[in-house]
Amino acid sequence: MIGILDSGTGGLTVVRALMEALPRVQMVYLGDTARAPYGGKSPETIKAYALQNAAFLVGKGVRALVIACNTVSSCAAGDLASRFDLPVFEAVSPGAGQALEVSRKLRIGVMGTRATVESGIYPRKIQALNPEAKVFCAACPLLVPLVEEGWLNRPETNRIVKKYLHPLKVRQIDTLILGCNHYPVLKKTIQRKIGMRVKLVDSARALAVRLKALVAGNPEYITDAEYSGNRETCRIYLTDTAARFRKTAGLIMGKDISVRRADI
Amino acid sequence: MIGILDSGTGGLTVVRALMEALPRVQMVYLGDTARAPYGGKSPETIKAYALQNAAFLVGKGVRALVIACNTVSSCAAGDLASRFDLPVFEAVSPGAGQALEVSRKLRIGVMGTRATVESGIYPRKIQALNPEAKVFCAACPLLVPLVEEGWLNRPETNRIVKKYLHPLKVRQIDTLILGCNHYPVLKKTIQRKIGMRVKLVDSARALAVRLKALVAGNPEYITDAEYSGNRETCRIYLTDTAARFRKTAGLIMGKDISVRRADI
Repeated sequence: MIGILDSGTGGLTVVRALMEALPRVQMVYLGDTARAPYGGKSPETIKAYALQNAAFLVGKGVRALVIACNTVSSCAAGDLASRFDLPVFEAVSPGAGQALEVSRKLRIGVMGTRATVESGIYPRKIQALNPEAKVFCAACPLLVPLVEEGWLNRPETNRIVKKYLHPLKVRQIDTLILGCNHYPVLKKTIQRKIGMRVKLVDSARALAVRLKALVAGNPEYITDAEYSGNRETCRIYLTDTAARFRKTAGLIMGKDISVRRADI
Repeated sequence: MIGILDSGTGGLTVVRALMEALPRVQMVYLGDTARAPYGGKSPETIKAYALQNAAFLVGKGVRALVIACNTVSSCAAGDLASRFDLPVFEAVSPGAGQALEVSRKLRIGVMGTRATVESGIYPRKIQALNPEAKVFCAACPLLVPLVEEGWLNRPETNRIVKKYLHPLKVRQIDTLILGCNHYPVLKKTIQRKIGMRVKLVDSARALAVRLKALVAGNPEYITDAEYSGNRETCRIYLTDTAARFRKTAGLIMGKDISVRRADI
């Protein structure tokens, strides 16, 4: 059984990709909707919350932890790995690796929350793999609230996306990492504003691809005696189960799902 | 000594107004920046956090509680009053009263967070004072992040304000309550978009006016043996003391202030 932690509901895109690839894998998801968004908070707060959230999942008996959120991955992956005796998979490395695979000029842009950008994790990870790469980051703090309000194809959103991407465009990037689970729903707008030749890398999808390979090679993650049989394959916990969070969760999972409340 | 609780730093506008009017009043402020914003969360989460925050202030020995935040006032004022044996002052009633004083046609608009609007508190409070009044509410969820990003005079913000105000404008309101501490910095834009004849009511200022009268009549709130003398008149605690929160706090208070971290 795999534990997946996220600051909200966006990490369910990773869950869904995994369920489609490996229908038998058992998962427990925790989205900290009560304290979200994390993107503007300090690394100390993000670490403290991530440790509490991970402890909740570890208490459920998971055998591996997946951090579906870029912000948490940026600030707390090391702390989680050293605190818990479990493999920890984070959301930054897969996208960083994939960007290097697809980039020709090694000029890579990254969109992220303020906490992700200020952590400097993307340049560090990318340049550790290839020191020749140039990495340019843009903090895009308004995109999370815009997406959460469903303002996807509105002129205001398009203008704000254009403004955020301008500094990356003048740096002539050829690859752009969508370094937050909220951004892929703005993919068309982002592609149009950054230019059709720039390759987009979806960090959540890159994480799901890496996890698929990993889970397929480690059957102990897949099944769990306690949860075999006809039980649901993913239990979803949210710290705030307000109707709008349940609705978003249902939209991402593409079906009627039951959501449990976690008190943390 | 008075305890002032808020979801973030916006409630410091109330603190500042009080300090200017009554320089000797002792205050302790708690802003829950780590878990903010509250405006999109469920009433259950807001109540739970408000109770924890109030307990922190009560532990500091305050003799009255002021809820500077409209969202917390909307969802948790009753719970705080019944849980703690202290006078509790909330941010909705003063603005509601002032709106009735200045409105001629009794057609009153309210801008607020989603939680404030969904609570229905403004129509309830206003109609309890005058059942003839018509109250029209608009949830403005993107204004808090726009203000926090400092996007005050940008065309994107102006367009979004216009969009939010449109349903109030067609109802021909003559008075508009700014039902969130973040909105007064957008006052000029709001006035332009709603029309110059509509009277704006600043709920934070209305609260400060009411508190001044109250504190002046109750000297036990003002001084406190433990904090008399040359000590600072307001101790400010934030649950996340990231540089951007400290900066905002300093901007509102108009001077270099020291901020303490509260672990809640």
